Amino acid sequence: MNDRRTVFFISDRTGITVEMLGNSLLTQFEGLDFQRTTLPFVDTRKKIDHAIEQINLAGERDGKRPIVLSSMVDDAMSGRLARANALFLDFFQVFIAPLETELGLKSSHAAGRSHGVANSNAYLARIDAINYSLAHDDGQTTKDLGNAQVILVGVSRSGKTPTALYLALQFGIRAANFPLTPDDFGDGKLPLSVQPFREKLFGLTIKPDRLSRIRSERRPESMYASLSNCQYEIRAAEAMMQRDGIPMLDTTTRSIEEIATTIVHHAKLERHLF
Amino acid sequence: MNDRRTVFFISDRTGITVEMLGNSLLTQFEGLDFQRTTLPFVDTRKKIDHAIEQINLAGERDGKRPIVLSSMVDDAMSGRLARANALFLDFFQVFIAPLETELGLKSSHAAGRSHGVANSNAYLARIDAINYSLAHDDGQTTKDLGNAQVILVGVSRSGKTPTALYLALQFGIRAANFPLTPDDFGDGKLPLSVQPFREKLFGLTIKPDRLSRIRSERRPESMYASLSNCQYEIRAAEAMMQRDGIPMLDTTTRSIEEIATTIVHHAKLERHLF
Repeated sequence: MNDRRTVFFISDRTGITVEMLGNSLLTQFEGLDFQRTTLPFVDTRKKIDHAIEQINLAGERDGKRPIVLSSMVDDAMSGRLARANALFLDFFQVFIAPLETELGLKSSHAAGRSHGVANSNAYLARIDAINYSLAHDDGQTTKDLGNAQVILVGVSRSGKTPTALYLALQFGIRAANFPLTPDDFGDGKLPLSVQPFREKLFGLTIKPDRLSRIRSERRPESMYASLSNCQYEIRAAEAMMQRDGIPMLDTTTRSIEEIATTIVHHAKLERHLF
Repeated sequence: MNDRRTVFFISDRTGITVEMLGNSLLTQFEGLDFQRTTLPFVDTRKKIDHAIEQINLAGERDGKRPIVLSSMVDDAMSGRLARANALFLDFFQVFIAPLETELGLKSSHAAGRSHGVANSNAYLARIDAINYSLAHDDGQTTKDLGNAQVILVGVSRSGKTPTALYLALQFGIRAANFPLTPDDFGDGKLPLSVQPFREKLFGLTIKPDRLSRIRSERRPESMYASLSNCQYEIRAAEAMMQRDGIPMLDTTTRSIEEIATTIVHHAKLERHLF
């Protein structure tokens, strides 16, 4: 039996939100073969009619009607898309009505407000945060560290760089990151450059076997990647962070999103929404 | 009159999706004073009860019941949270039932599937893409450019770096970026290092007055930021890209999300969902 279902993520904007929410719904149905197609910027009747053709074709091919998860601000557009032969769920439309009732206001039904660059200050703050985090990646510069909102510390490959970049991109947070290396473990003291900013430090740690696997991807068979060296570095780094009272998060089983969100909330970082 | 409303974004996971969808809904109601609070990782009865307390307190303070936008996989947890005195909208619960009916399956109702690191290959691909995009930022290295999925080109500050990093983080795409500088405009030819990869190039352009404003943030009163220089650089870069048939996107009024999504779909880049 063919269990294939085609799922369309359709949006009048980027489709990123509908993909994320849709994906978290679909992961609840394990073992099914979902074929995902994203159609962004579907904001004209012509594009909607083209989407409907694609949906109907997929349904005939699969022998099962597709699932359409959409986010359309314009209700007429949404209604038109609903004519496709599919299970049609529009995230936006379902929620806008109860919000209008609660707020006693009609919504402006204008597409394209999210992620906007309309507010140029927020945009510049975001770009600033990205440039800051990039310039302060991996301890590249210690200049201006006082302007960081958070300074991630941890051994090489514990997740600092992806987390710092995510904090900058998603939340507009100036996130520096600084490596803890065997050089620091000799005297057991934090690197000199970050000592003045102890209250901004946030430690990332990781299980030795996972770290060894990650490091082996880059430098197989190296001392650097060996389990015994990973065990040594992590033990030393954790002891150092504990002694200095630096909050610490184990990244082993966490996604970048989870690590970043946990830091934001634990360290109460001020952030933007884009 | 006090128009303040407190809005809670509550999730058993990171809350990122619920924030994004919630925010795009709220931007439809201009002029209202929404106070946003995000509560992530609300996954125990104790945390739910604490959230309910905060919600009810905010309602008393505002004199209006808060709006709760949530995403809770566990229906008992969601039901418990619904006892708060608020307009309660759960994104997850609303959609899971019609999906179960359509698919003829009960969902696993297990939290924490999205953004997972469970699939370690996808995780490694994502980290790889981030490292690749970082190493190939701003033409830092031309080594290994053949491994890029896309190479962004454009004048300084046209949006290449944020876009490349977003492509890597959000979609796991290896995105290099390479500046077009006055040095290249002399002979009107693409930089030598990217010429062999013409089919991977994607151009970013921008309106001169906006570019001038962005550059002035960094180097006020400079030749680099002057409107006339920005006009010259953009005219030369656009002419070069047009002549070589390189697709081009104007970033002036677009968010990073919009630029990245447009490139993905235009260039048909293979990508992951996290």
